Amino acid sequence: MAQASLGDSEFDRDTAVTRRTPGTYTAVLSPGWSIIRALNGGYTLATAGRALSRALPHPDPFSITAHYLTPAAPGPAGIRTETVRTGRTVSTGTAALVQYAQDGTEVERLRVVATYGDLDDLTDEVRTSAKPPAIAPREECFRSSDAPGDIFADSTLLQRLDVRMDPATCGWAVGRPSGAGEMRGWFGLADGRDPDPLSLLLAVDALPPAAFELGVTGWTPTVELTVHVRARPAPGPLRVSIATRNLAGGFLEEDAEVWDSADRLVAQSRQLARAPRPKDLAAGARPS
Amino acid sequence: MAQASLGDSEFDRDTAVTRRTPGTYTAVLSPGWSIIRALNGGYTLATAGRALSRALPHPDPFSITAHYLTPAAPGPAGIRTETVRTGRTVSTGTAALVQYAQDGTEVERLRVVATYGDLDDLTDEVRTSAKPPAIAPREECFRSSDAPGDIFADSTLLQRLDVRMDPATCGWAVGRPSGAGEMRGWFGLADGRDPDPLSLLLAVDALPPAAFELGVTGWTPTVELTVHVRARPAPGPLRVSIATRNLAGGFLEEDAEVWDSADRLVAQSRQLARAPRPKDLAAGARPS
Repeated sequence: MAQASLGDSEFDRDTAVTRRTPGTYTAVLSPGWSIIRALNGGYTLATAGRALSRALPHPDPFSITAHYLTPAAPGPAGIRTETVRTGRTVSTGTAALVQYAQDGTEVERLRVVATYGDLDDLTDEVRTSAKPPAIAPREECFRSSDAPGDIFADSTLLQRLDVRMDPATCGWAVGRPSGAGEMRGWFGLADGRDPDPLSLLLAVDALPPAAFELGVTGWTPTVELTVHVRARPAPGPLRVSIATRNLAGGFLEEDAEVWDSADRLVAQSRQLARAPRPKDLAAGARPS
Repeated sequence: MAQASLGDSEFDRDTAVTRRTPGTYTAVLSPGWSIIRALNGGYTLATAGRALSRALPHPDPFSITAHYLTPAAPGPAGIRTETVRTGRTVSTGTAALVQYAQDGTEVERLRVVATYGDLDDLTDEVRTSAKPPAIAPREECFRSSDAPGDIFADSTLLQRLDVRMDPATCGWAVGRPSGAGEMRGWFGLADGRDPDPLSLLLAVDALPPAAFELGVTGWTPTVELTVHVRARPAPGPLRVSIATRNLAGGFLEEDAEVWDSADRLVAQSRQLARAPRPKDLAAGARPS
């Protein structure tokens, strides 16, 4: 496949925003980024994040949080931003991504609050104690197309990603989850576009739920997702590791770490998600 | 000391909010919750969180994020809330905590977005793989009053807390940081009030910075703090463990876990903070 370049790829086209008034943008959410029937939360966050990158005086999301209110659908969307504070090194803003019901009623999909800065202004100091995840070589990993058919049948997202899952963390796919609640994989965009801070917002939410490796294979809709982007990623494939430690009370958290080809920890995320309800499990885990 | 009860303690009085108009509240930030010269971010978050608990139809913060804009000071504050969405099981809202400059100009201190629910409505299912931290018995731990004088001299917060730090994670206090970037301790309110969901917002941000155990002892102002409250805490002392893994580029993350006396993981948090600048270290690590 031809190598797409930064700014001219499926991801860039499908997260593009058009400025309408100061602080207000429109977008057209693409059907190409869905999991089961819902648009991926990392995709909608990246779209809102691109609007904030335009609205704020700093380009990169240092910390960005989204609360998911209603499921986003392919089609037109509006993004209203508010600049909360602008400083010399960082600025803070909010974004509301809205769509429209059949009768024209506005329905908000996600509410975002974020602090942006310029990753190029950061110091070179790295004292990270975290270590890159050990992942099997790419050629030994499972591709999405190897995955069991049912759950991925109408997940267009997977055609736009080049995700390769470490077989050691894919026991769930053959009915033998490890019980550890951890997964690891390689992440890239299918058209070969290199990662940038906005595509990291997608990378943290693109693997199957870590809960699958606990034997919990159902719909785990995200309530809230926070991403810290810590460095501009080097070109090349990313490594993503995800884990859940606290499945309780009908909710679970999922942490993700994203490492670039230069062994730099470029993003950390945590989300709070709903655990599948027993009736969801019985019904085949479709979103309502 | 007499045992204070829930609703009638220093913490409750100092985080009290008064409703002025629908969705708008006032508070008086107390000087009693400062670290060095700045009010603790967990304290201001708990105050904004109490306003949201009043404004939203659900009482408990399931996921709450604050972006810290300017340092809060003791004195009057206003809290404007917006109800973004109300659902059957959860509702989402925002809060802006503001104060006033000498000339009356409004200055925003923190912007909050949160999803609230009712912890009493959650299922009893617990499949947590996380384990409570091993902490030395309370009587073997360091109290705040044992700590080196300089950095704590004008930290009124410490008089209102009953924090006991595991000596194994306090090498920094005697100039021998472990290098692991981890700390553990017991947490309670000094007046004996039992924990509740709002006091958990304080507990996650009340220990010394985990970076101290990396040998980085300076001011680490919080940029953003997200807390997931996962269960209503049982009465009795809490155990808090904090850790940082990614000190890089002038920023660091800090994760906290809070366990209650019934061995339940009741809160998880992550914050993004600025690492001390070299000149801060040289000057003794005071906030500007």
